[in-house]
Amino acid sequence: MFKRIIFLTLICGRALLSTLNAQSPSDPARYVRPLIGTARMGHTFPGATVPFGAVQLSPDTDTIPYSSDGKYNKDVYKYCAGYQYADPTIVGFSHTHFSGTGHSDLGDFLLMPGTGALRLNPGTADRPGSGFRSRYAHTEELAEPAYYRVFLSDAKVLAELTATTRAGVHRYTFRDTTKSHIILDLMHGIYNYDDKNVWTFIRVENDSLVTGYRQTNGWARTRTVYFAMKFSRPFKDYGMKDFDGNKVYRGFWRKFNQERNFPELAARRMRMYFNFDTRNDQQVEVKFALSPVSTANALENMKAEAPGWDFDALRRAGREAWNHELRKIQVDALSQEQLINFYTSMYHAALMPTTYMDVNGQYRGLDQNVHQAKGFTNYTSFSLWDTFRAFHPYLNIVSPSRNADMVQSMLAHYEQSTLKMLPVWSHYANENWCMSGYHSVSVIADAIIKGVYTGDPGKALDACVQTARNRFYDGLGEYIDRGYISADRNGTSVSTTLEYAYDDWCIAQLAKKLGRQDLYREFSGRSSNWKNVYDARIGFMRPCMADGSFRTFFDVLKTDGQGFIEGNAWNFSLYVPHDPTTMISMMGGKRRFAAHLDSLFTMHLPDEFFAETEDITRDGIIGNYVHGNEPSHHVAYLYNYAGQSQKTQARVRMILDKQYHNGPDGLGGNDDCGQMSAWYIFSSLGFYPLAPASDSYSLGSPALKRAVIHLDNGKTFTVIANNQSPRNVHVRQVRLNGKPITSMMINHADIIAGGTLEFDMMK
Amino acid sequence: MFKRIIFLTLICGRALLSTLNAQSPSDPARYVRPLIGTARMGHTFPGATVPFGAVQLSPDTDTIPYSSDGKYNKDVYKYCAGYQYADPTIVGFSHTHFSGTGHSDLGDFLLMPGTGALRLNPGTADRPGSGFRSRYAHTEELAEPAYYRVFLSDAKVLAELTATTRAGVHRYTFRDTTKSHIILDLMHGIYNYDDKNVWTFIRVENDSLVTGYRQTNGWARTRTVYFAMKFSRPFKDYGMKDFDGNKVYRGFWRKFNQERNFPELAARRMRMYFNFDTRNDQQVEVKFALSPVSTANALENMKAEAPGWDFDALRRAGREAWNHELRKIQVDALSQEQLINFYTSMYHAALMPTTYMDVNGQYRGLDQNVHQAKGFTNYTSFSLWDTFRAFHPYLNIVSPSRNADMVQSMLAHYEQSTLKMLPVWSHYANENWCMSGYHSVSVIADAIIKGVYTGDPGKALDACVQTARNRFYDGLGEYIDRGYISADRNGTSVSTTLEYAYDDWCIAQLAKKLGRQDLYREFSGRSSNWKNVYDARIGFMRPCMADGSFRTFFDVLKTDGQGFIEGNAWNFSLYVPHDPTTMISMMGGKRRFAAHLDSLFTMHLPDEFFAETEDITRDGIIGNYVHGNEPSHHVAYLYNYAGQSQKTQARVRMILDKQYHNGPDGLGGNDDCGQMSAWYIFSSLGFYPLAPASDSYSLGSPALKRAVIHLDNGKTFTVIANNQSPRNVHVRQVRLNGKPITSMMINHADIIAGGTLEFDMMK
Repeated sequence: MFKRIIFLTLICGRALLSTLNAQSPSDPARYVRPLIGTARMGHTFPGATVPFGAVQLSPDTDTIPYSSDGKYNKDVYKYCAGYQYADPTIVGFSHTHFSGTGHSDLGDFLLMPGTGALRLNPGTADRPGSGFRSRYAHTEELAEPAYYRVFLSDAKVLAELTATTRAGVHRYTFRDTTKSHIILDLMHGIYNYDDKNVWTFIRVENDSLVTGYRQTNGWARTRTVYFAMKFSRPFKDYGMKDFDGNKVYRGFWRKFNQERNFPELAARRMRMYFNFDTRNDQQVEVKFALSPVSTANALENMKAEAPGWDFDALRRAGREAWNHELRKIQVDALSQEQLINFYTSMYHAALMPTTYMDVNGQYRGLDQNVHQAKGFTNYTSFSLWDTFRAFHPYLNIVSPSRNADMVQSMLAHYEQSTLKMLPVWSHYANENWCMSGYHSVSVIADAIIKGVYTGDPGKALDACVQTARNRFYDGLGEYIDRGYISADRNGTSVSTTLEYAYDDWCIAQLAKKLGRQDLYREFSGRSSNWKNVYDARIGFMRPCMADGSFRTFFDVLKTDGQGFIEGNAWNFSLYVPHDPTTMISMMGGKRRFAAHLDSLFTMHLPDEFFAETEDITRDGIIGNYVHGNEPSHHVAYLYNYAGQSQKTQARVRMILDKQYHNGPDGLGGNDDCGQMSAWYIFSSLGFYPLAPASDSYSLGSPALKRAVIHLDNGKTFTVIANNQSPRNVHVRQVRLNGKPITSMMINHADIIAGGTLEFDMMK
Repeated sequence: MFKRIIFLTLICGRALLSTLNAQSPSDPARYVRPLIGTARMGHTFPGATVPFGAVQLSPDTDTIPYSSDGKYNKDVYKYCAGYQYADPTIVGFSHTHFSGTGHSDLGDFLLMPGTGALRLNPGTADRPGSGFRSRYAHTEELAEPAYYRVFLSDAKVLAELTATTRAGVHRYTFRDTTKSHIILDLMHGIYNYDDKNVWTFIRVENDSLVTGYRQTNGWARTRTVYFAMKFSRPFKDYGMKDFDGNKVYRGFWRKFNQERNFPELAARRMRMYFNFDTRNDQQVEVKFALSPVSTANALENMKAEAPGWDFDALRRAGREAWNHELRKIQVDALSQEQLINFYTSMYHAALMPTTYMDVNGQYRGLDQNVHQAKGFTNYTSFSLWDTFRAFHPYLNIVSPSRNADMVQSMLAHYEQSTLKMLPVWSHYANENWCMSGYHSVSVIADAIIKGVYTGDPGKALDACVQTARNRFYDGLGEYIDRGYISADRNGTSVSTTLEYAYDDWCIAQLAKKLGRQDLYREFSGRSSNWKNVYDARIGFMRPCMADGSFRTFFDVLKTDGQGFIEGNAWNFSLYVPHDPTTMISMMGGKRRFAAHLDSLFTMHLPDEFFAETEDITRDGIIGNYVHGNEPSHHVAYLYNYAGQSQKTQARVRMILDKQYHNGPDGLGGNDDCGQMSAWYIFSSLGFYPLAPASDSYSLGSPALKRAVIHLDNGKTFTVIANNQSPRNVHVRQVRLNGKPITSMMINHADIIAGGTLEFDMMK
């Protein structure tokens, strides 16, 4: 906690002075702390980006693909976003980063300015000066929306970063002007397992423009990013080093030396450098535009988004883009810390999925062909196992047209899929098949049912149905035949069965809305398959063998090997968000169920079991309740269905309080592409989408004093919490537009119609 | 010779029977022997292609990248075209081949049908049955224009091949129907030095359509070929093997086994197989379309060029496309063998450069971006050091619009070049920088001066001038400053100086035509630089040091290390095609020069020096005159300038007779992308373009009895040789349209105007 206070003082000083009343101002960006989540497990990045931008220009402190003995290093997991707050050195600034993932990729095109002797190896953090990396101090670092600044003390360069949607913009001030240079590292990559570089192709078009692409085989098996890089003034000279020893065809070496001032370069692994004379002008700016399609498109993107050389104007425009997003919800908070948590959550919930389309509408499809997006913005990086829960529902309220485009992007993926599968975890024209379920159907059904996606709903339903009938996919054939996935063959048989059942219910809801009774019946039937893995004798979901018997070996505290993914039976057994009433009844009725939840939140998970809990710090757990992994995100709201809403209220406020802090270590687990943040936003507002694809929200306990949601349709939905205080967590009465609510639910239509949701908090 | 007769009997039987009068019929394709040049050094391929087609679908007998000890195997040179006539086995049929090159690449997408046990390794030729390769017999092989057939005796499959411009079409008849399968080898490549595969990406779109691409780092550093493959009927099942051990991201392996029936594949090195049930229908046809741009374009190419399943119709259309080319010159020959040599030469002179553009006009440029060809067909694979001499001038007569498009393609390359260089040796959106000079300027100047290229001549001149002023290129800076390239720094200082001087003369001629006196003066001045490397004391061009002295160590018989490329001083010293008169004068006058030529043709080149003569068989040399390498292609015609035309006539006829035969070993050296063949055609017609970019041709001794050239403008130019016989090689009189010629020259305009060139041969 001490550390956290120091951090706040350092980076929040200005904000603290100006907003003591804790009301959101016209510039809510001032409350955003991009550094939150950059320590330990948050896996967020501190660099410059704009909402849902294609470029995330951010410092990388390390990526450590291998330990010193050359073996694969587990520590690489720390570097999913490239930056760890505790690290003493920065390797450089790369242009693509996931936010809050638990697996990784990207880290494309690292730039690093330097002075003095040229070093083309990064060196190691424990030996400053052993390479081009540089020490820095957090006191000389500033991270804001669309702006990042740090002084690189070994490099003797002040580095400033900003971004447009498709371009990163660097401003380097060389404090020492001896042998100023900028390194372009084309080997650097995040999660560079087994050296993911496949090919690099570079053209030095003239004395200040460089284009090229890099192709990698990482988490995405086949991923190519094209770029155009423009310097604000000519370099003196340039060169490269081929770290594969120039395996490229040598016929031209009689004529040329590829490594010095040769403008057409190709290699699997190379680093480049550009020397500048900075004696008369210490600043060099760099515009670095990306494209999924071609260098020609990258250049077109640059010309459209960053035509000139006004770094400060782009920084202001980036911040204004953020304020435009953040002003969608205006809040009165209980504290400065809460304001920071809230707007940083909104910030983290507007980073992914990312724009994957050039200004001319072209993008690369799953088939690796170039497609033209007609009437929508194409997005990529769908971490759907996480984001279907609260993130996409959140967008349905604050950014419906954007979410509609995301649905369209997912349907385009489906059209391009040889397997006729909606995305599972897709990024950069690739399906990486991470995690389980087919949760695209939840996002699609939710967006259609809530009136957000207005494309052809029949085609969308077809895609959902086809996806859910693909027998080859992850036990789905057996699930269809048997009603569950058997533990004999599948290590996550229980959780996948539970997830399929929920997804099927989503399809059923969509079918119902579209009047497809046949499909409604089929998928409603499938949606109760969760019952097939419930062991009533022990009150938990449990691995079930092909012969119908439950697996003998079973430990409800263990996470590994118990039939669940990222959760033990205590956490994951409650995953029936679409039918909590039946589940509660099967689990012994409301009273017994509430006691079961009490145990979950209050028991102690022994260390040996905690060690198996992925992605989570000790702070990320309350009793045995794991908030840092998603399967229990709805659990606190289940008390509502057990007739003990006051416990929902208390638990939600406790989780908000315990799991989200202002410091770099303020997140108890991966932010998971905005899902953790979306949970925070919903819960702070007092309601939560228990089962997306239903149009209702379960009420909790708002944490803010007041919030005004500015809807796309021009209306506002206001949440007011009377008698709000950190200790007043229980709700005496809730009124929607003045009428008391007893169901502890509101509907999406209630929100979209505009109005006021008023909570009277108990003193 | 015995072998040759047997070969003729085998493959020419039908032609022999039907055309005893040796006149070219309406089906000149019957005289084409694609097998000519497939033994030893010819480096031609026997497979199916159409004129200048993008697809060359041909059997590969081996590629042997490594010897058994894992070291690089020099023998790989034999396999520039993938096929060696003496080899006992065929590995399969790949879709891209150079014709007659001395370095290589390509060999993309090998298909191999088989029966019985599936083997995913090719095995070795000395152990039949050790892999998927199969024995075959030349008695069961037929090679025709646009058609190739062979019975694979181990595979027990009759394989037939035909082609459209952008698609290869296979018809496999399974003589044994046990476990019929077709292998798609995505690792196979010609000149697979150091394993050139960079990446492979495959989609099994449905049960009969497969798309994908392969990217290689071979002679072309960055080359990607896209394909779409369609089977005439569904395969039963399919699979792949990843020969890198599935280094691709393993996250999805819990869900899938990539190696069996998984439709989205990616790996660096893989082979696929497709199993068929051939019990009821023994035939499987395969259409395999290529694209330089995308799989979508490959599919579009297939739909445009081979929409249905009529193999025989495509074969007929391919043959008709060939006849359309071949009928441009109708001949009366002295013999069947001459007819075969002539039409096979025309065939070999219509294989390269190849179409490098999709049916929709898109192609990949040197910058790797996709470009749209506006109003021209884009071509690639320009072996300019060879082809500027006679091949492009030949096209200026028989296919001017095609040559104009080739010029346009070269100018597009220039526009896309960061170095502002016209192509040197370019293929597949890459410059490989092979050989010396900047002979694009010869092709461009020749095409403009002869009225063939009608695009903006000023822009074309600018490209030539810029190219010739690029000081960084291969000694050019020194050449500009000093008037020659010094032997101190450059191993081919003499030949490159000579080539630059000729190229500069071409630019001067173009500048003159366009009224650019300044440039005319500049480049006329440079064009006499050949004098700076002439050592009058010994009568040879000779390496000259930076200090102006000639290098002491010098051997006029040696090829290696004497300052020349692919030629010794005897052969290369005569390379002043643009100013033979001055050269002859400097070499002591006409008489002494003629005696010098006599020596060249009659001396014996000792074996130790012959061994250094690249690409040449013993048959490829006459005295010390090396016809199989290009630098002396104009030499026989130099007697004309020494006042001894009768010796030009005799030598030309001797070369025609000695250097071109009907057998697989009928070429004495690499065909060099049609240059050797174009020499044959010109010389057979009785004239030759001594110095392209001049509009004149030097007369020799026609070898045919009569030839009618059907010009694009509807006119005909007829060559008649009265009293023609194998022994009547000397010309008594030549008349153009009845008027005697004393200059031993005709002009391009004389040909294009139509008319008759009549030679009276001495009895």
